[in-house]
Amino acid sequence: MFRKTVVLFGYFLQLATLQTSFSIPASKVVSHHTDIDSQIKAYENISQKIINFVTKGEGKHQTFNQLAAMTDKFGNRLVGSETLESVIDYMLNQFKANGLENVHGEEVTNIPHWIRGQESATMLEPRNYKMSILGLGGSVGTTADGITAEVLVVHSFDELQARAAEAIGKIVVFDQVYINYGVSVAYRDYGAYQASKVGGVASLIRSIAPFSINSPHTGWQYYKNGTAKIPTACITIEDAEMLSRIAARGEKIVIHLYMEAQNLPRATSRNTVGEIVGTKYPDQVVLVSGHLDSWDVGQGAMDDGGGAFISWQVLSIMKQLNLRAKRTVRVVLWTGEEVGLVGSYQYYNAHKSNISNYDFVMESDIGTFKPNGLKFSGNDEAFAIMKKVMTLVKPINASTLYKKADGGDVSFWIKNGVPGGSLSNDNAEYFYFHHSNGDTITVENPDDLDLCTALWAVVTYVVADMDEMLPR
Amino acid sequence: MFRKTVVLFGYFLQLATLQTSFSIPASKVVSHHTDIDSQIKAYENISQKIINFVTKGEGKHQTFNQLAAMTDKFGNRLVGSETLESVIDYMLNQFKANGLENVHGEEVTNIPHWIRGQESATMLEPRNYKMSILGLGGSVGTTADGITAEVLVVHSFDELQARAAEAIGKIVVFDQVYINYGVSVAYRDYGAYQASKVGGVASLIRSIAPFSINSPHTGWQYYKNGTAKIPTACITIEDAEMLSRIAARGEKIVIHLYMEAQNLPRATSRNTVGEIVGTKYPDQVVLVSGHLDSWDVGQGAMDDGGGAFISWQVLSIMKQLNLRAKRTVRVVLWTGEEVGLVGSYQYYNAHKSNISNYDFVMESDIGTFKPNGLKFSGNDEAFAIMKKVMTLVKPINASTLYKKADGGDVSFWIKNGVPGGSLSNDNAEYFYFHHSNGDTITVENPDDLDLCTALWAVVTYVVADMDEMLPR
Repeated sequence: MFRKTVVLFGYFLQLATLQTSFSIPASKVVSHHTDIDSQIKAYENISQKIINFVTKGEGKHQTFNQLAAMTDKFGNRLVGSETLESVIDYMLNQFKANGLENVHGEEVTNIPHWIRGQESATMLEPRNYKMSILGLGGSVGTTADGITAEVLVVHSFDELQARAAEAIGKIVVFDQVYINYGVSVAYRDYGAYQASKVGGVASLIRSIAPFSINSPHTGWQYYKNGTAKIPTACITIEDAEMLSRIAARGEKIVIHLYMEAQNLPRATSRNTVGEIVGTKYPDQVVLVSGHLDSWDVGQGAMDDGGGAFISWQVLSIMKQLNLRAKRTVRVVLWTGEEVGLVGSYQYYNAHKSNISNYDFVMESDIGTFKPNGLKFSGNDEAFAIMKKVMTLVKPINASTLYKKADGGDVSFWIKNGVPGGSLSNDNAEYFYFHHSNGDTITVENPDDLDLCTALWAVVTYVVADMDEMLPR
Repeated sequence: MFRKTVVLFGYFLQLATLQTSFSIPASKVVSHHTDIDSQIKAYENISQKIINFVTKGEGKHQTFNQLAAMTDKFGNRLVGSETLESVIDYMLNQFKANGLENVHGEEVTNIPHWIRGQESATMLEPRNYKMSILGLGGSVGTTADGITAEVLVVHSFDELQARAAEAIGKIVVFDQVYINYGVSVAYRDYGAYQASKVGGVASLIRSIAPFSINSPHTGWQYYKNGTAKIPTACITIEDAEMLSRIAARGEKIVIHLYMEAQNLPRATSRNTVGEIVGTKYPDQVVLVSGHLDSWDVGQGAMDDGGGAFISWQVLSIMKQLNLRAKRTVRVVLWTGEEVGLVGSYQYYNAHKSNISNYDFVMESDIGTFKPNGLKFSGNDEAFAIMKKVMTLVKPINASTLYKKADGGDVSFWIKNGVPGGSLSNDNAEYFYFHHSNGDTITVENPDDLDLCTALWAVVTYVVADMDEMLPR
């Protein structure tokens, strides 16, 4: 007890009187091999300080206010758009204004560049009804006249196979039941391909969502070589169910589909990078991240404004609290995530020769609702250490360590052995808004964002400052 | 116990062997003055029969299927539209096909006839952004050029008064917090009037809803004489909050509003009426109702397809089960509810001379989610009787009697002393969908609709068949 008190007194004195960057001197904490508990214990006060700053102090609602300022100013940010590049410039300036170090964009090339254009779907038979649709990413457009065709409604790929002969020349409507995103997204991903394979002329996919207020949800989709590329869009749950009922009554359905969607020449963009260089092991990196690009609907405030901004905020808070860890803390805001993890994959390839220096890679891309803990990928020894790190966020009731990080943009590192973490949060409503016009800052709660930020900052700082890298 | 057994045996024999219409012979049940308990008790088996028929028998999902058939075929039904009149014809035919008696439309005249036309609102400054809006019922349109004006954002009528000088020539945006529908709807009702009074050129009202996926909600609004009629529309919660934040940062907002809305000459429509005439007191009436007109968005499946169809279904089930009460059971599907209870008010005036024969008036217009009981308006003696009637729906866990019926279309009768009832249900999400494109059959759950139907049918039949009218 005495020992710890001395250590903590020492660094609060430093903080209070000198206001210089600092980390807990390695000499004053014991190695985690000999006493990980006391090493973690030594971070209790600084963790509480971070938590207080974010939830009650000057940092309160900073994340929300910064995120709202960006989304209000720019709106959504599809890769390939001028808006995204303006936002990247804006973020680089924000990083610099924070005093972050080595602030720069890292070029990402050869990115799919898709644009939506005007689009509409109108049911012509059995009655005239204008549907709400969103074309799917990568889809080709229709001709200027659009496509007018009879509809075949199916509920699964199996049913489509069984009724393949009926699909020829038809618009294939998929009204699959929502199981969960991971399972059901196969219909968005491959609905057009499967429909085309059996002679369909277009496909309309029930949105991959558990709830709807007449809300279409877009997302990327994949053609396959050797099969004609047919136009494809998502429709609302409501319309999918209606078409399904009408078809079940034996009535003929005719839809007119019009889409100006285009795939333009590949685009160039940037990952947005900033650092706080480590005091003792500047080459070793704890990477914290989210993606800055979004779909071209809503504001991309949830997907992934929240994840990107809590990650940026980790470094901003470290600067505001004059914290510097032994290792380098690096924020990366990925580009081109929505069109297939393009920015993060190129980043991995550009930096993987240095993989042994990547201590821990973190990403938040599944909501920044009320946090409940961290999802972690790593070996048992690392898991045991992280379980102890998580005790530091007990004051915000978000200290559970779950197995298996989400991966996503940091999956390339995790697959190759680097311990990885993702934010676990009460995101039951995430897919209500995902890839829809409902993904706006209204979804984000300022207090919950503070809790996410606090968790993210404590974990990042402590892992970056511990005596040794996480075992792998 | 024996006595009751004889009675019930008697009428099941009648049902099973003769399949003719019947009611419990008055001679075999005691007056409710002497023994209301045993009179209610005598309805236990027939109530269970209704419940079984609706929830497990041939009646299962009939309400949903009928409602889906209508909404899929016709969509929404704004008063004044040809579609509504086609739906009224369709319903009259359905009533006749059911074998209902005295099936007819009752003319309703002088109904506000508003049409939406094309409409749009685009934020031009500080950036270009197309908003989701729905013009409000009764609103005038803009000129062909639309209105381009700076925006004043306020959060209450008080704030508007305090900042009246700033409103001149502006588009007034109301970003009022949602308290509940009854309170907050004042902004939809009178936002345009209040904005106009202080020199505003248009008003945009935050939708009256607790939740949004970028969902605008329409509804009627009221100009007042002596104040210029200015165009008015509702905007989404998300956009209202965004405009509010931008304004709070001191930035100038300019919006271009375009609305083709028109108020056409007053329309004529019909209330849709059908009956099962009473055996003993054919002039005495239990009226069960919902409204058939809807807004011109979504499908009006919830507001008020559900209420209208459970009311129709009461009579349909009575026919299917060969039930006929001592009093006449009358279904009325009101017209012109959404533009100010027009059909029900004219019905009241046409029939009020007969008010002493109106035993009980029922309406369902606040959702047909899982039912939990009945809301009731009437004197203490009537309340006590209805509490006992409600024990008959204990098998579906919806037997609570609450004080004060919602009123709405049957309010004219209730105000003048007729006991009234409305369906109480778990409608916490009602205003998520209300008056929006999300009001579709997808909101309705087939099993919950069955429970609503069962409750509605038991209450209607039993009250119509009891020895005496409810006391008033």
